[in-house]
Amino acid sequence: MVVSEEIQSTVEGDGATSKKAAKKAAKAAEKQQKKEEHKATSGQPQNDATEPDISEGRYGTRKLIQSSGEHRQRIYTDVKDLSLSLDGKDVWVRARLQTSRAKGKQCFAVLRQSSSTVQLLINVSEERGVSKQMVKFAGNITKESIVDVRGTVVKTSSPVESCTIREVELLGAELWLVSAAKPQLPLQIEDASRPEKNDDPEALKIRVNQDTRLDNRVLDLRTPANQAIFRIEAGVCRLFRDILTKKGFVEIHTPKIISAASEGGANVFTVSYFKSSAYLAQSPQLYKQMAIAADFDKVFTVGAVFRAEDSNTHRHLTEFVGLDLEMAFKNHYHEVLDTIGSTFTEMFRGLQEQFASEIATVEQQFRVEPFKFLDPPLRLEFPQAIQMLKEAGVTLGEEDDLSTPDEKLLGRLVKAKYDTDFYILDKYPLAVRPFYTMPDPNNPKASNSYDMFMRGEEILSGAQRIHDPEFLTQRAQHHAIDISNIAAYIESFRLGCPPHAGGGIGLERVVMLYLGLDNIRKTSMFPRDPKRVTP
Amino acid sequence: MVVSEEIQSTVEGDGATSKKAAKKAAKAAEKQQKKEEHKATSGQPQNDATEPDISEGRYGTRKLIQSSGEHRQRIYTDVKDLSLSLDGKDVWVRARLQTSRAKGKQCFAVLRQSSSTVQLLINVSEERGVSKQMVKFAGNITKESIVDVRGTVVKTSSPVESCTIREVELLGAELWLVSAAKPQLPLQIEDASRPEKNDDPEALKIRVNQDTRLDNRVLDLRTPANQAIFRIEAGVCRLFRDILTKKGFVEIHTPKIISAASEGGANVFTVSYFKSSAYLAQSPQLYKQMAIAADFDKVFTVGAVFRAEDSNTHRHLTEFVGLDLEMAFKNHYHEVLDTIGSTFTEMFRGLQEQFASEIATVEQQFRVEPFKFLDPPLRLEFPQAIQMLKEAGVTLGEEDDLSTPDEKLLGRLVKAKYDTDFYILDKYPLAVRPFYTMPDPNNPKASNSYDMFMRGEEILSGAQRIHDPEFLTQRAQHHAIDISNIAAYIESFRLGCPPHAGGGIGLERVVMLYLGLDNIRKTSMFPRDPKRVTP
Repeated sequence: MVVSEEIQSTVEGDGATSKKAAKKAAKAAEKQQKKEEHKATSGQPQNDATEPDISEGRYGTRKLIQSSGEHRQRIYTDVKDLSLSLDGKDVWVRARLQTSRAKGKQCFAVLRQSSSTVQLLINVSEERGVSKQMVKFAGNITKESIVDVRGTVVKTSSPVESCTIREVELLGAELWLVSAAKPQLPLQIEDASRPEKNDDPEALKIRVNQDTRLDNRVLDLRTPANQAIFRIEAGVCRLFRDILTKKGFVEIHTPKIISAASEGGANVFTVSYFKSSAYLAQSPQLYKQMAIAADFDKVFTVGAVFRAEDSNTHRHLTEFVGLDLEMAFKNHYHEVLDTIGSTFTEMFRGLQEQFASEIATVEQQFRVEPFKFLDPPLRLEFPQAIQMLKEAGVTLGEEDDLSTPDEKLLGRLVKAKYDTDFYILDKYPLAVRPFYTMPDPNNPKASNSYDMFMRGEEILSGAQRIHDPEFLTQRAQHHAIDISNIAAYIESFRLGCPPHAGGGIGLERVVMLYLGLDNIRKTSMFPRDPKRVTP
Repeated sequence: MVVSEEIQSTVEGDGATSKKAAKKAAKAAEKQQKKEEHKATSGQPQNDATEPDISEGRYGTRKLIQSSGEHRQRIYTDVKDLSLSLDGKDVWVRARLQTSRAKGKQCFAVLRQSSSTVQLLINVSEERGVSKQMVKFAGNITKESIVDVRGTVVKTSSPVESCTIREVELLGAELWLVSAAKPQLPLQIEDASRPEKNDDPEALKIRVNQDTRLDNRVLDLRTPANQAIFRIEAGVCRLFRDILTKKGFVEIHTPKIISAASEGGANVFTVSYFKSSAYLAQSPQLYKQMAIAADFDKVFTVGAVFRAEDSNTHRHLTEFVGLDLEMAFKNHYHEVLDTIGSTFTEMFRGLQEQFASEIATVEQQFRVEPFKFLDPPLRLEFPQAIQMLKEAGVTLGEEDDLSTPDEKLLGRLVKAKYDTDFYILDKYPLAVRPFYTMPDPNNPKASNSYDMFMRGEEILSGAQRIHDPEFLTQRAQHHAIDISNIAAYIESFRLGCPPHAGGGIGLERVVMLYLGLDNIRKTSMFPRDPKRVTP
């Protein structure tokens, strides 16, 4: 069989990490390619059996698609568009072969495109020109290979429960291998897609652990849940930008390579920069503020943020996507707080409206409690939180920061009392916030700063910033920060700067918490943590 | 005068890069703040003169806006909204004092908000309660300070040619200093805004050189042209994303920290990564391709890209914003080429339609020839370009790459012949493209690759990528690339991958070339080059 030869050469190439092995693989590939060219030209797979093949020219391995112009006019139908309206029609589909089982004179297969699946039936039929050799070929194609199928859309007698397309299936007439997957996959999509709900009867079956998933991310990302998660993530980004653009914000881009570690030098990655060195920005904040001092009034930026923290937790990454915004206000930083709050509620509503089917897909694998929010969002002040925690038995001083367990408990208390998974906690103690945070004018121990929470975890930290250069200098000195390192920053405020406030959001956290997932690595396509910089 | 005291303290703080100086400044600031608190409470600036001031409580320095709740209900009008429809109305405006000149009993000032300006007249008037002390105060406010003004909108007898708002001016009744600029600014907005057209009668006047601008970017960014340029840049980003989203693309985020230098290790920045080291990604390409292998079908990403090239030219940055896209296709990479081409024409049309006034603002300072393009865009093949250059006297081999001067000349030849500033050059010689470029199936010396040009400069480079692991291995070896460094990359294609193509665009180049500007530092808000990592 030609197909098994192809697979053989793929397997040989598999371990090709040494040059020698790679060379051998390349030679095999060359040989194989020539053979395939011959095949493709002759339009027929070579056949070990001597008996005539009525499917000649209807199946085999397609010549490497190198844009020769062949089949250029062929129109393909998407799996998701297969429906009763196409009943009886002949269509071409390019999709992954999720599974295929040949048994005697027929082969049942499932074709998959992103999260959509459809059943394919290839059975021996003189009428349609399908030979038993062709059925055997179909049964031997490796899972996850990409195939071109020509088939007739046929109404099924009963709904196909195992596929997303249930009312119709394809009756195959041609089958061409476009790109072969190797036979021994490091994980099975079926296993990686298995529901993880505790009370699920399937819960005891094989699972794929996080590291195996991430080591083989290309495969792992093909699960319906992952296809949905990263579409939702794209949606969060788009909604964030569109909502702010409508509110008059301007998108800016801030440098990731910076000359000085802005906040004391801790947790910062060093970069070799020609004959000197530089750092990776932990936040675009100083630049957002400069943009405000430069009259852009309201700005946002979406980009990579770097933290050299050796934190190996479910919610820390060393590189993540920051959704940052900064806004000049007239008289009170609540003008900004309200803008951020309504941005979140509009975003949550947008996700509900535009991503209902993706959310449902995620729900099939993970236990997702629907995300609840109030409009306008709930805003509590720090002392209220302290009081709620106190009533729940946690003792905290009025100038203490909240620990992560405190935050989680508070999230549960707030949910119980107010029925919301999102809330704003305003007026943090001055002592626990960075030097540039504006103190509360009415309470020397408080500040004009806030965090926002989703399901009890912090997803935004922000504040009114000090826009007066002398006051800023004074506060930096109070925090023992070397003024010479932040000279350019302070200088911005000597050129006239309106009062302003802002905040930074971690994109991956928003998606994780909106969906109620348990690990941030599930919402970062190629996550980076202290132990992982691959793939 | 209180104001000059305030200025004094600012000047003292100006050189505060040493700790000692900073401490001194902080003390002065504290003293000053207390004084201001007193002033604000009394609602009246202290007055050296003994004569009574009828403007008492109508001018002075506003207490630091710390969100005390004061004036929270006050409604401000934007400068751009001041028009005849408000004639006779009293309004509050917060804006920069661009200039102010007191002469005798009146002070003429210009208020600026982003690119909009309006004239403010403050003259002694018992009726409006304006004293000569208040007029003097207005004349002494430093340029670029932010002020709150209450005034009456008044129709002007003749259009104010020096302002963007020409039909009305403001007759001031209150004037409060919100944030003072220091008196000695490192550059004047007037100088930084001066037209740079060669035939302009003002061309001989003072200019601000590029480094002074960049060293004082917060001020430089306040010029009308810069206010417009970065709004146009935000527009390019938005249009790019919106057009692709409509075409079914999914936005992804790719890591900037990577484990291995992908393309041979040249021009790559090294990062200290905990106890090991890593690199900054020169391109998201490998990750975009993995996303294609992971069934996302069509993806784009917008993010920082790093190049450790010691190139000190008008068009190189060490960090820039990449607009990258990748797309699976069915049979011919021109499916992708056409998608990218139409994305550009839609983007150019969107800029024309949505940013006409910003483009006009840039035009007031820089000589901008309107950008011309064809729809569908012009596509030439490499041999045609060689032929056009040959006819113009340039001799090139058919496997030579184009030099930058060749590209510029070609741009002029194409413009002369086809009247377009944008075109696609297809079918580059295989020899000059990276290892992963798909060779042309019909011509062993050519490849399925393309560049795109704006005004004769390259702004996109792209190709069909090799999606077959053995063929890819072979081509990498041909390029003497260490296979072990790209094992994960090659492995992606052993899991089944559709044919695909894509490209990467430099955002700053697109904006520079669309507007016909001469330096990429004009379109990067905080540019990075081998000699600059600040501000």
